[in-house]
Amino acid sequence: MNETGRPQELPMSNPRADRVRDVAKLAGRPARLKRGRFLAEGPQAVREALVLHRERTRAGEPGVVHEVYASESCLDRLPELAELADGVTLRLANDEVLAAMADTVNPQGIVAVCSFVDVSLDSVLDAGPRLIAVMCQVRDPGNAGTVLRAADAAGADAVVLTASSVDIYNPKAVRSTAGSLFHLPVVLGADIEELVELCKDRGMGILAADGYGTLNLDKLQDENAARRMGASAARSDYALEGPTAWLFGNEAQGLSESELALADHRVAVPVYGSAESLNLGTAATVCLYASARSQQAS
Amino acid sequence: MNETGRPQELPMSNPRADRVRDVAKLAGRPARLKRGRFLAEGPQAVREALVLHRERTRAGEPGVVHEVYASESCLDRLPELAELADGVTLRLANDEVLAAMADTVNPQGIVAVCSFVDVSLDSVLDAGPRLIAVMCQVRDPGNAGTVLRAADAAGADAVVLTASSVDIYNPKAVRSTAGSLFHLPVVLGADIEELVELCKDRGMGILAADGYGTLNLDKLQDENAARRMGASAARSDYALEGPTAWLFGNEAQGLSESELALADHRVAVPVYGSAESLNLGTAATVCLYASARSQQAS
Repeated sequence: MNETGRPQELPMSNPRADRVRDVAKLAGRPARLKRGRFLAEGPQAVREALVLHRERTRAGEPGVVHEVYASESCLDRLPELAELADGVTLRLANDEVLAAMADTVNPQGIVAVCSFVDVSLDSVLDAGPRLIAVMCQVRDPGNAGTVLRAADAAGADAVVLTASSVDIYNPKAVRSTAGSLFHLPVVLGADIEELVELCKDRGMGILAADGYGTLNLDKLQDENAARRMGASAARSDYALEGPTAWLFGNEAQGLSESELALADHRVAVPVYGSAESLNLGTAATVCLYASARSQQAS
Repeated sequence: MNETGRPQELPMSNPRADRVRDVAKLAGRPARLKRGRFLAEGPQAVREALVLHRERTRAGEPGVVHEVYASESCLDRLPELAELADGVTLRLANDEVLAAMADTVNPQGIVAVCSFVDVSLDSVLDAGPRLIAVMCQVRDPGNAGTVLRAADAAGADAVVLTASSVDIYNPKAVRSTAGSLFHLPVVLGADIEELVELCKDRGMGILAADGYGTLNLDKLQDENAARRMGASAARSDYALEGPTAWLFGNEAQGLSESELALADHRVAVPVYGSAESLNLGTAATVCLYASARSQQAS
């Protein structure tokens, strides 16, 4: 390493080298499960991974990033990445090697091998969360990533994926999170019944996003606004400013009857036009933002 | 045709037939532009196309659907589709033929060849719109379709794509709209300067969705709620209940400086967590729903 944190050896140039194949195998679930590692691709994801790595190691916790592979031109363009990678193995590689490692055709010159970042449900609940997004049997990696990113933007305290959901470490899911995977606690493989019970024990309300729901999200938002402004003492069906876990269902079938039965209320996102329904990412965004606004303002 | 509207000839079975190739070519832009037609795939899109076709032909206007190709099992499963197709050429085809025609691996047993459905900017503006979603140089077909679907759900009066945006008739874009392409007027290839001028002439406000915007969407919503409840006479920077055209930028770069300069205000969607930004579909959803709620309630 020189003083800029830039490695000095020659760039890796053999796309068929064992080390390259080992990294590429992380595109598949068996290799990820076996090694407990996954791949972050592109400057944004790698930056966020390195920031979390630094936070954790400074706090004396295990790190997140094992190795970073980058092209010289990428480090020239984004020198802060080499600085952030201080203390992490950083190897130079040419574009052909990076393309062979990555799931995308164009990894934008940088990839990082990361440890799984998911945490236990207990650790999430012990922190006293106010807003949790729960994905129930969501199957599409892009959808899962989009919901996770929306949850991050809405300031959710955690995201939970139930058992038989898509693997959030799937490269497409990781890409769709746009770095948010490294921003907030994620719990994987949760049992939905256990999760709901534990949330209820801690005083959280459980809302199911359901196109056929009887509670209207607009009404809940209006009631919240009225309370904030002292304009009304109307009895509310549900106080949106309270701690809430939202359940979001599978993109094709929505929540199952047994999942719906676990919720305190089934809440419909209003459809003002003639769309038959909202896609999962859109519906989750509207619900999480409604909670976030109510919680922030109250 | 028999009395159920079901064709009686043998199903098409040669995936290399000229007619099959002609339909398949609609996956490409040159064939679409040359023939002014595109492909709707799957029961949901075909149903919505047929509903619009029936509305238009009953009103004495040109229809939308030229031909429908379906498998026998699809029509058995969804007999209402054959009824809806009354007056439209409906041909039976086996799964191999349908797969060869469609862009998706699995078109779920039905595809329709449709005429372009876009309308002129004048016809949209003459109808006195209250809410328009404008996509400026949006390039990804899935994003464009998602924004169109969100605009439909929010009850927008029209969607506009500016010149050098993605082709909304791209099969992936059509799929992402989930039928909403047939629900509300869509204008293509608009000149952004002309569009903004015409909207302003008609008294519409122009809001640019911009992560660096100085107006906060939450504040605008709160001011709207306060006015509705008579709780405040606070001066508002912008009345969200007024007729509005929202400008949404390219997914990678956002709106350009020249596009931003055309807007009355640059509005930021609040990010409560540590996400760097929202993806296009998420941001558009939050903005359009904020306007829709304000307009509906006022």
